[in-house]
Amino acid sequence: MSATKDKAGADTPGQRGPADHERREQILAVADDLFKAHGYRKTSVTDIAREIGVSGAYLYKFFDSKQAIGEAVCARALASMDDALRAVVERDQPATQRLRDMLKTLLEEGLRLFLKERRMHDIVVVSIENQWAVTEEHNQAVYDAIKRIVSDGRESGEFERKTPLDEVCMAIRITAAAYAHPVLLNRLGDTDEMEVKLSAVTNLILRSLAP
Amino acid sequence: MSATKDKAGADTPGQRGPADHERREQILAVADDLFKAHGYRKTSVTDIAREIGVSGAYLYKFFDSKQAIGEAVCARALASMDDALRAVVERDQPATQRLRDMLKTLLEEGLRLFLKERRMHDIVVVSIENQWAVTEEHNQAVYDAIKRIVSDGRESGEFERKTPLDEVCMAIRITAAAYAHPVLLNRLGDTDEMEVKLSAVTNLILRSLAP
Repeated sequence: MSATKDKAGADTPGQRGPADHERREQILAVADDLFKAHGYRKTSVTDIAREIGVSGAYLYKFFDSKQAIGEAVCARALASMDDALRAVVERDQPATQRLRDMLKTLLEEGLRLFLKERRMHDIVVVSIENQWAVTEEHNQAVYDAIKRIVSDGRESGEFERKTPLDEVCMAIRITAAAYAHPVLLNRLGDTDEMEVKLSAVTNLILRSLAP
Repeated sequence: MSATKDKAGADTPGQRGPADHERREQILAVADDLFKAHGYRKTSVTDIAREIGVSGAYLYKFFDSKQAIGEAVCARALASMDDALRAVVERDQPATQRLRDMLKTLLEEGLRLFLKERRMHDIVVVSIENQWAVTEEHNQAVYDAIKRIVSDGRESGEFERKTPLDEVCMAIRITAAAYAHPVLLNRLGDTDEMEVKLSAVTNLILRSLAP
């Protein structure tokens, strides 16, 4: 593939810019749809190119490999989850309410992004097996959201202040992994059952934060 | 394979018994070692048979497929984890101490069983992808262990009694998934980091149980 890529790259020297950015986004949107419809493993770079109406060689100008496209699709999905979390954090509401809503958002966005009709998208399996590193930025975003809300709740007197802040935030982050991680989401049962479980864990966290 | 199996089965009618049980255990022990050494995917039924010194056809008397061996290996590993949990539950110690030790046991046994030099055994990936049902009994055993300890702690006055018992136990069970699940174990970092994280989550759970 590298010969194809070099050749295609040589055809358009110095053309990176806003147009390239839009094309990249278009490729990722189409890839995302195809991965969801047919599975990551069954979708080839040629399938993606055909759907857009360009050549496979042209796609290799933007991404080195199918895996590079897969990782970018995951990163894009997680970034949209992070935006949703930040929107909750910024609300003008008590910390208790925002913590509840943030954990709910984690669950809902996780379901929307990584499950389909109660089956995990295979891109999740592939990303686990190959230890893709795309989740790092997302993990930091979740941690920051928790820290902001817990700090606010300590200031307002809603939450206890004896336990070290970092310890509390880390523990909530790990606990929330039960919602953030598709493999565990997969085991949570139907929607009603999930609501009950989310509510139980959220209540546990809130009891642990009581002053 | 079914022809082979029927033939082998026909050779030894009515021979199931204690000897068969021992042979089954031997097959699983050898399979477990080979899966850990070379990976589940790279190990064939023939490899397992060769290691024991029998024919592949003979193995099909005991297990219908490689997957059946894989599921039985997982079930065996989880059952040994459940035994370790029950031993902690039965100790003559305060509930607080037993809850700490039980969560620690979950982490340590999970590491021992499903990780090797910081990489997940590939049987875990295969079991997730194919949604093997072997974890059901294990999930119940973990739930029972939690329920017993929380009930004891309520009776002794160590834990609060206002929240419904089932809600508390379910929430701890889900939270403990961060330790029980190999995919998440894999992300916890090195041993020191894991101890810190386990301790943070255990403390969060204990704060939530405070009367």
